[in-house]
Amino acid sequence: MEFSSKLLERAVNEMSQLPGIGKRTALRLVLHMLKQPKEHTVSLSLALQSMRANIKFCKSCNNISDVELCEICSNPNRNEEIVCVVEDIRDVMAIENTSSFKGLYHVLGGKISPMDGIGPHDLNIESLVKKVKEGSIKELIFALSSTMEGDTTNFYIFKQIQDCDIIISTIARGISVGDELEYADEVTLGRSILNRIPFEINLKM
Amino acid sequence: MEFSSKLLERAVNEMSQLPGIGKRTALRLVLHMLKQPKEHTVSLSLALQSMRANIKFCKSCNNISDVELCEICSNPNRNEEIVCVVEDIRDVMAIENTSSFKGLYHVLGGKISPMDGIGPHDLNIESLVKKVKEGSIKELIFALSSTMEGDTTNFYIFKQIQDCDIIISTIARGISVGDELEYADEVTLGRSILNRIPFEINLKM
Ligand SMILES: [Zn+2]
Ligand SMILES: [Zn+2]
Repeated sequence: MEFSSKLLERAVNEMSQLPGIGKRTALRLVLHMLKQPKEHTVSLSLALQSMRANIKFCKSCNNISDVELCEICSNPNRNEEIVCVVEDIRDVMAIENTSSFKGLYHVLGGKISPMDGIGPHDLNIESLVKKVKEGSIKELIFALSSTMEGDTTNFYIFKQIQDCDIIISTIARGISVGDELEYADEVTLGRSILNRIPFEINLKM
Repeated sequence: MEFSSKLLERAVNEMSQLPGIGKRTALRLVLHMLKQPKEHTVSLSLALQSMRANIKFCKSCNNISDVELCEICSNPNRNEEIVCVVEDIRDVMAIENTSSFKGLYHVLGGKISPMDGIGPHDLNIESLVKKVKEGSIKELIFALSSTMEGDTTNFYIFKQIQDCDIIISTIARGISVGDELEYADEVTLGRSILNRIPFEINLKM
C-alpha cells in the first residue's frame, strides 16, 4: 500500500497493529476520523492514553478497576466463600450480566497455552493457590472455556490445590464445546453457573 | 454492558464510535492494548492526533498530502490534460497501484447522496468545474463507483461542463456494478482505465 502522506501512513500502520484490523480497515477508520471534527480524534486518543496509563487491576481478584479493591470484592453482600475462576474480565462482565452468581471472581488473565508461549507463571495462578491455601474459600468454580488450553489450566490449578479441603466445580456445559463464554446468551450462561457440576479429572490426560 | 472501570468504559465508548466497531470489538481491542506495553498505546494515540492535526489536502486535487501540492500534481511527468475524477483517496491509491494512469486526479470527497444529506456543495465539485472552465484539461475520466449516487454525481458534474470543449469518459465497466473500486483486482481496474469509454447520458434519468 503506497501512501501520499507519511502522517497517514503512520496512523494506518499504528491502527493495523490492533488484532483483527488489517491495513484496509485501518485506512477506512483513519479516513473516517479525517471527515469528523478534530475533537473526536483528540477525545479518542486521550481516552486510550488515560486508560492505559491509569487503569488498575484489583489487588484481590485481578479484575480491572479504578480503585485498589474492585467493586465486586469490596461488596459486603457477595459471598467470599465461592470463587469463580475466569480467563478474562470479559467473562466477569458476561457472568455479572446474568445476575446468577453472588460469589467473587478470580481473573487469570488467559489460559496456559504453550503454543502461544503462555505458561502458568504468565497468569495469576499463584495468588489463587495462595488464597485457597489460606482456607477461607469453600468452593472454586472453574469457568474457563472448554478448549484444550482451558482443560490444561484447570488441571494445573487442580494439581496444586487437590489436598485442600475445598469443593471444585466446573460450570455446566450447556455452552457448546469450544465456544467463548462472552458470546453465550445470558440464559444459557446463567443456567450453567447454577447447574455447575463437580470437577472431574479426565484420566486420559 | 456494565464496566468495572470508568476509564475502561470511556475508552470502549470512544473506540465504538468508529464505523464498523461495535462495543464488543471495542472491548477486545482495548483489552489487547492493556496486555501490550504502554508505549504501544501512546504511539497509536500520538500517530492519530498528529495525523488529524497536521494532515493537508492538496490544493489542486484534494488528495491527502503532507505538502501544499501533492506528489502527483507536482510531478512534471504526469499529463495534466487528463484528469480522473474519484470519490476518495482510496481510489487514487487503488488506481496508482495499477500503474496504468499517468494523468492527474480530482478527489471529490464523496458522492452526491440526498439520503445521507450529502449535496453537491459538500463535495469538491466547484473547484473541478472551475479547472475545466479554465480550459487546460482535455479529458475528464469519471471513475466513481457505478451506483445511483455515482451516476447522479457524474450527471451533476456533466451538466455544468457540457458546453466546454472536453472529452468526458468513464472507466470501462469490467468492474461489476455496485462494486467499490478499492476492492477491484489490479488487472481489472488497470484495464478499465485503459478501455475507458465516452460518457453517455442515460436519457431515462
Ligand atoms: Zn476484585
Ligand atoms: Zn494533488
